[in-house]
Amino acid sequence: MALLVEKTTSGREYKVKDMSQADFGRLEIDLAEVEMPGLMSCRTEFGPTQPFKGARITGSLHMTIQTAVLIESLTALGAEVRWCSCNIFSTQDHAAAVIARDSAAVFAWKGETLQEYWWCTERALDWGPGGGPDLIVDDGGDATLLIHEGVKAEEEYAKSGKFPDPSSTDNAELQIVFGLIIDGLKTDPKKYHKMKERLMGVSEETTTGVKRLYQMQANGTLLFPAINVNDSVTKSKFDNLYGCRHSLPDGLMRATDVMIAGKVAVICGYGDVGKGCAAAMKQAGARVIVTEIDPICALQALMEGLQVLTLEDVVSEADIFCTTTGNKDIIMVDHMRKMKNNAIVCNIGHFDNEIDMLGLETFPGVKKITIKPQTDRWVFPDTKTGIIVLAEGRLMNLGCATGHPSFVMSCSFTNQVIAQLELWNERNTGKYEKKVYVLPKHLDEKVAALHLGKLGARLTKLSKDQSDYISIPIEGPYKPAHYRY
Amino acid sequence: MALLVEKTTSGREYKVKDMSQADFGRLEIDLAEVEMPGLMSCRTEFGPTQPFKGARITGSLHMTIQTAVLIESLTALGAEVRWCSCNIFSTQDHAAAVIARDSAAVFAWKGETLQEYWWCTERALDWGPGGGPDLIVDDGGDATLLIHEGVKAEEEYAKSGKFPDPSSTDNAELQIVFGLIIDGLKTDPKKYHKMKERLMGVSEETTTGVKRLYQMQANGTLLFPAINVNDSVTKSKFDNLYGCRHSLPDGLMRATDVMIAGKVAVICGYGDVGKGCAAAMKQAGARVIVTEIDPICALQALMEGLQVLTLEDVVSEADIFCTTTGNKDIIMVDHMRKMKNNAIVCNIGHFDNEIDMLGLETFPGVKKITIKPQTDRWVFPDTKTGIIVLAEGRLMNLGCATGHPSFVMSCSFTNQVIAQLELWNERNTGKYEKKVYVLPKHLDEKVAALHLGKLGARLTKLSKDQSDYISIPIEGPYKPAHYRY
Amino acid sequence: MALLVEKTTSGREYKVKDMSQADFGRLEIDLAEVEMPGLMSCRTEFGPTQPFKGARITGSLHMTIQTAVLIESLTALGAEVRWCSCNIFSTQDHAAAVIARDSAAVFAWKGETLQEYWWCTERALDWGPGGGPDLIVDDGGDATLLIHEGVKAEEEYAKSGKFPDPSSTDNAELQIVFGLIIDGLKTDPKKYHKMKERLMGVSEETTTGVKRLYQMQANGTLLFPAINVNDSVTKSKFDNLYGCRHSLPDGLMRATDVMIAGKVAVICGYGDVGKGCAAAMKQAGARVIVTEIDPICALQALMEGLQVLTLEDVVSEADIFCTTTGNKDIIMVDHMRKMKNNAIVCNIGHFDNEIDMLGLETFPGVKKITIKPQTDRWVFPDTKTGIIVLAEGRLMNLGCATGHPSFVMSCSFTNQVIAQLELWNERNTGKYEKKVYVLPKHLDEKVAALHLGKLGARLTKLSKDQSDYISIPIEGPYKPAHYRY
Amino acid sequence: MALLVEKTTSGREYKVKDMSQADFGRLEIDLAEVEMPGLMSCRTEFGPTQPFKGARITGSLHMTIQTAVLIESLTALGAEVRWCSCNIFSTQDHAAAVIARDSAAVFAWKGETLQEYWWCTERALDWGPGGGPDLIVDDGGDATLLIHEGVKAEEEYAKSGKFPDPSSTDNAELQIVFGLIIDGLKTDPKKYHKMKERLMGVSEETTTGVKRLYQMQANGTLLFPAINVNDSVTKSKFDNLYGCRHSLPDGLMRATDVMIAGKVAVICGYGDVGKGCAAAMKQAGARVIVTEIDPICALQALMEGLQVLTLEDVVSEADIFCTTTGNKDIIMVDHMRKMKNNAIVCNIGHFDNEIDMLGLETFPGVKKITIKPQTDRWVFPDTKTGIIVLAEGRLMNLGCATGHPSFVMSCSFTNQVIAQLELWNERNTGKYEKKVYVLPKHLDEKVAALHLGKLGARLTKLSKDQSDYISIPIEGPYKPAHYRY
Repeated sequence: MALLVEKTTSGREYKVKDMSQADFGRLEIDLAEVEMPGLMSCRTEFGPTQPFKGARITGSLHMTIQTAVLIESLTALGAEVRWCSCNIFSTQDHAAAVIARDSAAVFAWKGETLQEYWWCTERALDWGPGGGPDLIVDDGGDATLLIHEGVKAEEEYAKSGKFPDPSSTDNAELQIVFGLIIDGLKTDPKKYHKMKERLMGVSEETTTGVKRLYQMQANGTLLFPAINVNDSVTKSKFDNLYGCRHSLPDGLMRATDVMIAGKVAVICGYGDVGKGCAAAMKQAGARVIVTEIDPICALQALMEGLQVLTLEDVVSEADIFCTTTGNKDIIMVDHMRKMKNNAIVCNIGHFDNEIDMLGLETFPGVKKITIKPQTDRWVFPDTKTGIIVLAEGRLMNLGCATGHPSFVMSCSFTNQVIAQLELWNERNTGKYEKKVYVLPKHLDEKVAALHLGKLGARLTKLSKDQSDYISIPIEGPYKPAHYRY
Repeated sequence: MALLVEKTTSGREYKVKDMSQADFGRLEIDLAEVEMPGLMSCRTEFGPTQPFKGARITGSLHMTIQTAVLIESLTALGAEVRWCSCNIFSTQDHAAAVIARDSAAVFAWKGETLQEYWWCTERALDWGPGGGPDLIVDDGGDATLLIHEGVKAEEEYAKSGKFPDPSSTDNAELQIVFGLIIDGLKTDPKKYHKMKERLMGVSEETTTGVKRLYQMQANGTLLFPAINVNDSVTKSKFDNLYGCRHSLPDGLMRATDVMIAGKVAVICGYGDVGKGCAAAMKQAGARVIVTEIDPICALQALMEGLQVLTLEDVVSEADIFCTTTGNKDIIMVDHMRKMKNNAIVCNIGHFDNEIDMLGLETFPGVKKITIKPQTDRWVFPDTKTGIIVLAEGRLMNLGCATGHPSFVMSCSFTNQVIAQLELWNERNTGKYEKKVYVLPKHLDEKVAALHLGKLGARLTKLSKDQSDYISIPIEGPYKPAHYRY
Repeated sequence: MALLVEKTTSGREYKVKDMSQADFGRLEIDLAEVEMPGLMSCRTEFGPTQPFKGARITGSLHMTIQTAVLIESLTALGAEVRWCSCNIFSTQDHAAAVIARDSAAVFAWKGETLQEYWWCTERALDWGPGGGPDLIVDDGGDATLLIHEGVKAEEEYAKSGKFPDPSSTDNAELQIVFGLIIDGLKTDPKKYHKMKERLMGVSEETTTGVKRLYQMQANGTLLFPAINVNDSVTKSKFDNLYGCRHSLPDGLMRATDVMIAGKVAVICGYGDVGKGCAAAMKQAGARVIVTEIDPICALQALMEGLQVLTLEDVVSEADIFCTTTGNKDIIMVDHMRKMKNNAIVCNIGHFDNEIDMLGLETFPGVKKITIKPQTDRWVFPDTKTGIIVLAEGRLMNLGCATGHPSFVMSCSFTNQVIAQLELWNERNTGKYEKKVYVLPKHLDEKVAALHLGKLGARLTKLSKDQSDYISIPIEGPYKPAHYRY
Repeated sequence: MALLVEKTTSGREYKVKDMSQADFGRLEIDLAEVEMPGLMSCRTEFGPTQPFKGARITGSLHMTIQTAVLIESLTALGAEVRWCSCNIFSTQDHAAAVIARDSAAVFAWKGETLQEYWWCTERALDWGPGGGPDLIVDDGGDATLLIHEGVKAEEEYAKSGKFPDPSSTDNAELQIVFGLIIDGLKTDPKKYHKMKERLMGVSEETTTGVKRLYQMQANGTLLFPAINVNDSVTKSKFDNLYGCRHSLPDGLMRATDVMIAGKVAVICGYGDVGKGCAAAMKQAGARVIVTEIDPICALQALMEGLQVLTLEDVVSEADIFCTTTGNKDIIMVDHMRKMKNNAIVCNIGHFDNEIDMLGLETFPGVKKITIKPQTDRWVFPDTKTGIIVLAEGRLMNLGCATGHPSFVMSCSFTNQVIAQLELWNERNTGKYEKKVYVLPKHLDEKVAALHLGKLGARLTKLSKDQSDYISIPIEGPYKPAHYRY
């Protein structure tokens, strides 16, 4: 990769699509700020003391307008920031432009190649000779992954002089990562070690990324503390659920203009994301069928009047398929071949391996007709019928629409800010070990509380007597840790 | 107006934004055809006999992809077609391009001025020296209006030699219409009479246009037969209701990305359109308040758990306002001044006078900030708060999104095709006088039946015995005329 | 039949189950009055002038608490009233008791035999030597039927001296009617003619009864004017729809305590009643399948996300079956034999012939186990599986629960009062011929308006300018006659 | 208390209302068994090995038909059972009768006094000279409370010779408990110690009871192991949520027949129970307002389109009030005085102190009019307006209807059976200390799995490859412990 890094007049680096969109980005940021009371309230509460003074924060998180408000909240609290997106299609170019111009180093554009994607990630992590960031804001764990793979490779190299072997994996992305690390090894064989040394911790946003962190914790390979922001109630039960309830139909409509009412929609997986997706489709007048491996989630779907079947049962009858599982190999090319003409296939889970894109792309004689960017019709040679695949199997709500709306992202991102503050403030106290933590309940409740006023809500207050009776402090926290909401 | 009419290599006239979008238009037409079984079935059923052979059809109807499928259904049945849009913002430029290239004379682009709009209408009606069209497909009644105003002016001119006086009205559009007619009078003082002579009738699509027709019928001024397509059940109870249920959130999301859940949405009017809008907002998690003049519709809203209040009661608390009344002066500038910062104001009724755009534009010191086309923030000078107005007060679903989805438009447009066939086939029989007609029940039921297979439905069939018992023919019609569905 | 008619101390006749329940009835009437603002408002508006002074009103309408409020509204306006129920299971015995004690002659109890049922109907119609009632309030048309059959038989008898022949029909009820008429012929061969002479008209409440009236109008056999109350919007679009949405789950729960969530519910028919039933089942978490003959209604069901199939398609998979068609022979014994063990079969249409009770009762070896009144388990001898039939196939909401709630019945019954007033006030003007009429729109709107205050609604008022613009009077009516709501 | 204990011919003790209802109870049990696949499956799986052979189980849990199926599942597995209800109004007398006749010692009837209630509890715990039960099935913790209070009193008595002092508390129930314990102390001052010695543990069913247990655990006063069945996902996220969604409207309809559509319903508390209640009211067409202390739950309500206000804000506008908080003093008499005439006030939380019944009963001049059992109208002397209180402030779904339906109770009760088996099987292993435990995830999932077949669901199965990818065993458990569903 020999991409050109550009610089603002003040010398800050960036690589974005089109700087002329910055003004448009600023206008949309202005709107978004009104919808993001949690973040704005952090600026009011913490801004004056500049708690992030001296902190370098790297983010790997969809470079949208909402993220722009997050970034400017971090800088408003004193941080220096470098940013990349965590998905090749999720960047909003006007958001990237305005942040690059006004606030932080950004390396992101809509429609990156995988090579470009990892180049951006590496750029966001590279703060120059002094090593990497103090803190990482991660979504899906790619920034975290790169450091872990880098450190592992450097150790092996130090021991055996061997580079990592891209041919040892058939995962195309990992091959690219190895290539990137090899480049690093050639210039500085301690590059990722230096990053690791400086790093105070990561706050991770997504189910998928959190799963990776817990696996590393279990294996004892986690290199720094991690705060699991995903499992804040005000994240997973809001962003994942209500965010997707909003953005699945949004993506479908922008990509295909298809009438949802009357259609049969198959939602693969009925976790928080699946619940939001199924609710959206049902409300829009579709008949919804859920696939699930977990009997509890399946029973929940049934209680909402949804049918629970296997994909094989319904593959030839349904009109819309959406994967939300966090697992791989959910909709295979053999499924796609059996679908109705112009069935819509999309994914709203973090990674693109829920849909067998490779199987589709390599199917003999298959023809890809791009209706418009992120909306492709794939025609099978024998049946002459086609299916419509959105965002090439990647997050369709970010690829085909603009992701989750500001208000719900304000919940998620306020958790991020609080987690980052926590890691930074406790950087010298030893409070956080190389483990995965969730935020304490009272901070979770605080995030919620910051979002009530905007919606005109008025909370009831416990009396002293009531507080004693149920043994709950008047100011909370109001629920035990295991409470499920 | 001195706009240049272009011609295809085959000599067909057009004026569109960008011919290079024609291929994209064709791809989207291909998708839409799969979603429009009613229209495709008309092609199969009637195409072979070319019933419209020799017929000239002028359409004044949003030039979208769905309309493109309608136009090509008319041409597939043998018609020659000239087309314009019935709204300055509703044209999809790729749809206009492909139709202009492949199928009909088109005069339409997104973002016409009012002058351009009426120029387009006049172009669509003008078939050259031989007079005008045989048939009109109308939406909102502007093509019908132009002919009626033209004929009236010509009569006055023949009588008194006087031109119509633009200064006699403060309706800006009518002033333009008068100007257009004056131009006509100068070149051919019988132009609109000739049109009227040739014209077999109009089929009208929309509540608003139908209201005009019934008024003309009542006044005895209707110049030709009219079929009220709007009041086919398969039109008003589908397009108006389910179409808006789909396209209101679509428009809101594309224009503002605002989270609908948790917001207070005020729907002004609870007719078919209002019902669809209210349902959409409720389903998306908003709290919905309805304003109504009609106690029956108000009681329906209450039965659905919606609050019924006046606009004044809620103007300062709500987040989203949408007018659906078909009346004028619903949201005035004084209302807008009392709204919350960044309240969203939009209209989904046919005409743009539901929202007091004039009052807003002329408010002293008001500042208009265009976020993006069709999304403007208006800031009041004293409060510094702003409201967001969509599509300049015009149909927001067509201005900010792509209008109603193909499937429901297939219902509406199949009614249009059937109505056009009816007018044409009976052109010499005297069946239709200068009155307003609705299609007979059995044709309405047929339209519905054509759309069931696509959704996998299977109808039950009456036995002879059951048919006798309830005195309903086995093949329908199944309901009396007054049945409300 | 030799049933004993009892008399109150004031000499008013009655036959009810248990007079000691009168106090309980009064308490429930007190509650109901608060929920029936339309009827109470009629008392306020018309009570002082006693418009029904001298009028004899016979009612054949479910003798429930809500009907009690109707009856006392009629008497509050000056009428004398005799009443019977229009269904053998629908009487609430405490309602019958209190009305018998306080307000009107009542012949009704829960669980009449068919013989008893028609005896009650005849008692309600028989006002003694002076002939019958001046007005009839009918529901399902049985009082109207009896007079028509009576007159027909008397004419035949006058001509040929022949009695009607019960063996000429295999309809068990008609045989009973014939028997009753024969008894009449023997005592007074002009009995029904005298009734007919006196009668000013009938107001009919239900889809089924209205259908009969239109058939008689078409055949030219209608003997007196009829007002079709059913097709007031404030009746059919409220009582039929929202009433059933309330009372179907109510009946199911009281009869079987079954969990509705997760079940598959088949609703036969998607008219107003079916729409209410389907909505109720969907909202309670069932998966709903609709059967329909009418493609328009079928398409409506699809737009709400419901599946449309034939009964045969789903008979062995569903858990709950409810008929709402107004037709006969919908669920036959052969269907029932294929159902799952303990499938619930019920009817909410007016007549009990939607379910093949005869086929079930006469099925060889079938065993009926009465769980409790109106809840029977029928076990087939071969499969040993059973189905649960509610209310012996009659209106399950009245047989197993208490029918529709007061508020919605207030809408229906206010229409009844207004219709009765209209017939009575115009009795000498010739305004009403022997035809079927609907109430004018402004009265329909008035009924709605009377119910808004209770629910806290505030209507918007047209300005003069707006009124002119849309050519609608400020005070209404607001919609054309064909408007569908 | 000198209540007479009766005995069956086989010598088993009981005290129920009416043994003649036993046959009716059996018929309803037969129906319920078909709806309770989890329990029936336990009989199939465990019955043959009689794991409860020799175990004495005491239950304190609403003596309904569903509980009857639970009891007979325990006896089918070999247990001896004694039972009482945990609420004075919740017993279904036919259920009590049939269990008393056929299966277990029962002390329960609908409408116990508090004195009788605690007598029943004590009877159920008293297994004669050999001490108490081996295991307790508890709901609300009253059986557990009695033993804990008994032991405490016995300790004090052993130390000081003092009886507990009823006048030391103004809690009327606790006074009765003290009286009961005093009676015990007089006959056997080690009675409760003996119980405690024998007892292997308790499985507790309800949020409220579980809260007590955790408090005792925290205080170190818990005397035996406890399994928190409430926090099995298949309990709290099903019974509490979907059960109440079913039974709140059921109770309202049976008690008042009120139309829910169009009304304003206030749900106090938005936990699992409140979520179910709010969903039910919304779906039935009410406008729902939620009161909450917890900002997270409040934000959830807002996302569903519900308004969040304080009770004071809405007390004079709403029609229906339902408490679900688990806290006390939610609706006070001062609130009730401000309510609309005939506002409905009810509680669906475990204890009756959510509504200030004492304040109401002692309000000067207030008049109580019993419409029917569990439905009382209370009229205030000054305003002459009344409110309707259901079930005297106790669990309205059990007092006014029949509680939760069988299917969802099958989930809860299968957890109970599994918990009881666990406590019994591990009675000698030391696995369970004097702490509160939840069931392991795989058993929770098993409960769900047992209920899928009945609803026709088909689960998807992980491939080996997928299982490895997400590090989840093919057979589950599928989620981490902190997962919220």
